[in-house]
Amino acid sequence: MTISIIGIGLLGGSFALAVREKYPKAQFIGVDASPVHGQLAIAKGIVDEVRTLDDAVAASDLIVLAIPVNAIVELLPSLLDRVPDKATVLDLGSTKELICHAVEGHANRAQFVAAHPMAGTENSGPGAAFKELLPSKNLIICDRDKSRPDSLKLAEALFRDIGMKIFYMTPKEHDLHLAYVSHLSHISAFALGLTVLEKEKDEQAIFDMASTGFSSTVRLAKSSPQMWAPIFDQNRTNVSQALTDYIEFLQQFKQVIDDQDVTTSLAFMQRANVIRRVLEGIEKR
Amino acid sequence: MTISIIGIGLLGGSFALAVREKYPKAQFIGVDASPVHGQLAIAKGIVDEVRTLDDAVAASDLIVLAIPVNAIVELLPSLLDRVPDKATVLDLGSTKELICHAVEGHANRAQFVAAHPMAGTENSGPGAAFKELLPSKNLIICDRDKSRPDSLKLAEALFRDIGMKIFYMTPKEHDLHLAYVSHLSHISAFALGLTVLEKEKDEQAIFDMASTGFSSTVRLAKSSPQMWAPIFDQNRTNVSQALTDYIEFLQQFKQVIDDQDVTTSLAFMQRANVIRRVLEGIEKR
Repeated sequence: MTISIIGIGLLGGSFALAVREKYPKAQFIGVDASPVHGQLAIAKGIVDEVRTLDDAVAASDLIVLAIPVNAIVELLPSLLDRVPDKATVLDLGSTKELICHAVEGHANRAQFVAAHPMAGTENSGPGAAFKELLPSKNLIICDRDKSRPDSLKLAEALFRDIGMKIFYMTPKEHDLHLAYVSHLSHISAFALGLTVLEKEKDEQAIFDMASTGFSSTVRLAKSSPQMWAPIFDQNRTNVSQALTDYIEFLQQFKQVIDDQDVTTSLAFMQRANVIRRVLEGIEKR
Repeated sequence: MTISIIGIGLLGGSFALAVREKYPKAQFIGVDASPVHGQLAIAKGIVDEVRTLDDAVAASDLIVLAIPVNAIVELLPSLLDRVPDKATVLDLGSTKELICHAVEGHANRAQFVAAHPMAGTENSGPGAAFKELLPSKNLIICDRDKSRPDSLKLAEALFRDIGMKIFYMTPKEHDLHLAYVSHLSHISAFALGLTVLEKEKDEQAIFDMASTGFSSTVRLAKSSPQMWAPIFDQNRTNVSQALTDYIEFLQQFKQVIDDQDVTTSLAFMQRANVIRRVLEGIEKR
């Protein structure tokens, strides 16, 4: 089996490393806009060789798109135009509505599987890839009934074999949920980082006084802008609503603090404390 | 040497455990409003015995206040009224202006040292205490020149001996910086937890779709409301300003997303990425 990884970064690289461990005889071809990323990916054992996109597509049984979501929307239709009949195209993008919409009604739509692993770190590039990123995490497949049985079966088998648990939903459901449980936390971290950097100003004070609590809350502000800008753009209706909700809670809390209303402040935090139950579920995974 | 810990929770308990390791012959007395916390603290080896506040104060060389900041402001003046001449009173509260103000001009002010360790977790109570919490972290002492030399020397020696690095500043500087590097990140996490719990509603979806990025960003929403409500109240002027700044950045970012202005969105995140440099400094500690 030959697998091409289009975009050998954190996610594409981690997928390849995990699959290689289960299928040591599979051949991996890398395609990347950056020649340096290609060299690093070979040196790290992520892929066996680097080829052009056209060569890789022609040679592959499975083509995995792990590039920014705007690039997926652009590339996917033309990729399906020329994909060999035996091959499956899989995307790992963080949005699903626009990506699925871009190939709705395409003659080869059934060779495509729309997926999104619920995993990531704030780091990017092939150097950030590690084989433990995906195992034990959850994976969403959207519009499963629009993929042909053999393509779906191949994708599901690989994800299950590397230890992922698969959930199914519509692209619309996916994008709505992700706005709250992922996209919003990235924006809250980016804005927190900016506030502290540009309003606190005294960088030495940040160094000296910030603790692990601050590090944890702001960690996602290190994430790749090139990856996240298109995600927020593609999911802007949901993200904008989530931000409106978040800003409303912040304004309510600010009012409570301004009013010295300690009773309501306590109640506000006690409601938020319920998140402990949810986090314990996530951390057990 | 006899040390009393008033409030045997995460911070008081962790301080005692770290000091005990360096000074195994020191005697530790615990004082806590909760008898169960007292029992747990003895069982865990945090303190040797539990006594009433009056008994503990009379017997101590060092009295450490590790209770919520509103309780410190209430208790501290009357405690200084009756503190033995040989003894030092030390507080570990997360605000400093109101606490220092409460004893400004007190006849025994010089026996008091105002301190704040830059360390914590989202957990509370004696069960959450661990001896590694404070070592290698930073500590702020405020108004050092208002403490008498022997009291200051004792406090500094203990903090240094358990591996902390000491910084000095005014209570005003402390509270301003902390609003940005600590209090704001707690509020952003509480509000994020509430938004996801109460707007997303589908708790199963949060379970299935949230990843470690979300866990990290929202972690502080598990923190103790009883501890944090008085901190936000005491530091409300600075916290309110920090929240205004934060909400402004969020509104700007929302506008950029609504406008589909991907270039500005990228620039916004690139500015926030500078936080990577700061975090690397913190994580090296």
